[in-house]
Amino acid sequence: MENGAERALSFVIEIDRMKSILRRSLTFDGSHYENDAEHSWHLAMMAIAFERYAARPVDMARVLKMTLVHDLVEIDAGDTFAYDAAANLDKEERERKAADRIFAMIPEGAGLRALWEEFDEAKTADAAFASALDRLQPLVSNHLNEGHTWRSGNVDSDAVYRRIAPLKEGIPALWDIACSMIEEGVRKGYIRRS
Amino acid sequence: MENGAERALSFVIEIDRMKSILRRSLTFDGSHYENDAEHSWHLAMMAIAFERYAARPVDMARVLKMTLVHDLVEIDAGDTFAYDAAANLDKEERERKAADRIFAMIPEGAGLRALWEEFDEAKTADAAFASALDRLQPLVSNHLNEGHTWRSGNVDSDAVYRRIAPLKEGIPALWDIACSMIEEGVRKGYIRRS
Repeated sequence: MENGAERALSFVIEIDRMKSILRRSLTFDGSHYENDAEHSWHLAMMAIAFERYAARPVDMARVLKMTLVHDLVEIDAGDTFAYDAAANLDKEERERKAADRIFAMIPEGAGLRALWEEFDEAKTADAAFASALDRLQPLVSNHLNEGHTWRSGNVDSDAVYRRIAPLKEGIPALWDIACSMIEEGVRKGYIRRS
Repeated sequence: MENGAERALSFVIEIDRMKSILRRSLTFDGSHYENDAEHSWHLAMMAIAFERYAARPVDMARVLKMTLVHDLVEIDAGDTFAYDAAANLDKEERERKAADRIFAMIPEGAGLRALWEEFDEAKTADAAFASALDRLQPLVSNHLNEGHTWRSGNVDSDAVYRRIAPLKEGIPALWDIACSMIEEGVRKGYIRRS
């Protein structure tokens, strides 16, 4: 019978799997496909770097936890490519089942699950900010890697603008930069013009 | 001339390099050498999972930032193997120079640098806790990977016990588990008996 500290250690061992769940985006240097652990660390660091540009004041302890756990369900559910409409049909159901298992492993899980759900709704100040970061990060990767996932998804500019829209609400100071990256992607042929 | 948001973005692009700085430890599943971004994410998650077992009450916003940035200087200074005495001789100087450059990139850098220095001293409640996590994480990796770095460093049990000592102060509830992992490592021949 495990005690509480041992159960927490089992959780820590379980979530190591995030380091092997590959996303469709390359790291900014293009050296490898980014995994969920790297991505989540990067988002947390972006929260620190961009806090002063959040549209509304944010609570950093909540935002950091949110960015750290926002993809944790992918341990079971896998990464769902944002531009894959078919895979997104059953995404919610797959991720709900994953959440039922993973967040039940530690007492803190209930709070983390609530943060994950808040993140997905992207309505509160903290979630709108965190969600904006999650949209910006792969955009910058595409910008630095010749539109790698844009090209692999054969996406058009309307789809990219829809995807990045939360940035305008969450971190308005970055909106013009993001738009110039998209326009450059269109100009270079990485994004189809809608 | 970059504005503030553009400078923050330059920092976010710069720190992506953490994803390509390899440590001497394997991921828990043994699939690859862990990089600094993965390691830092894992430590932040461990802070969440073990907060209730911290020896003294901790401020989670500070602890999370501390775990996220504790290896940031390795972007310039590289990873220094804990059991390599020669490499550790000039570690402080290499890391100080790196800190001068990296933490100067954003206004928040001064505060992050102070957290990094606090982490290294491991005296405050927040730093003692974060430092304990940083010692525990590679121990668990060794436990799950046939003593991979213990064997590559040809280490003895005294060195491992010295290395893990901060855990006893920072998270006493995990001390017995850590000791049993070390004793098993000795028994299996992964650690030389001192």
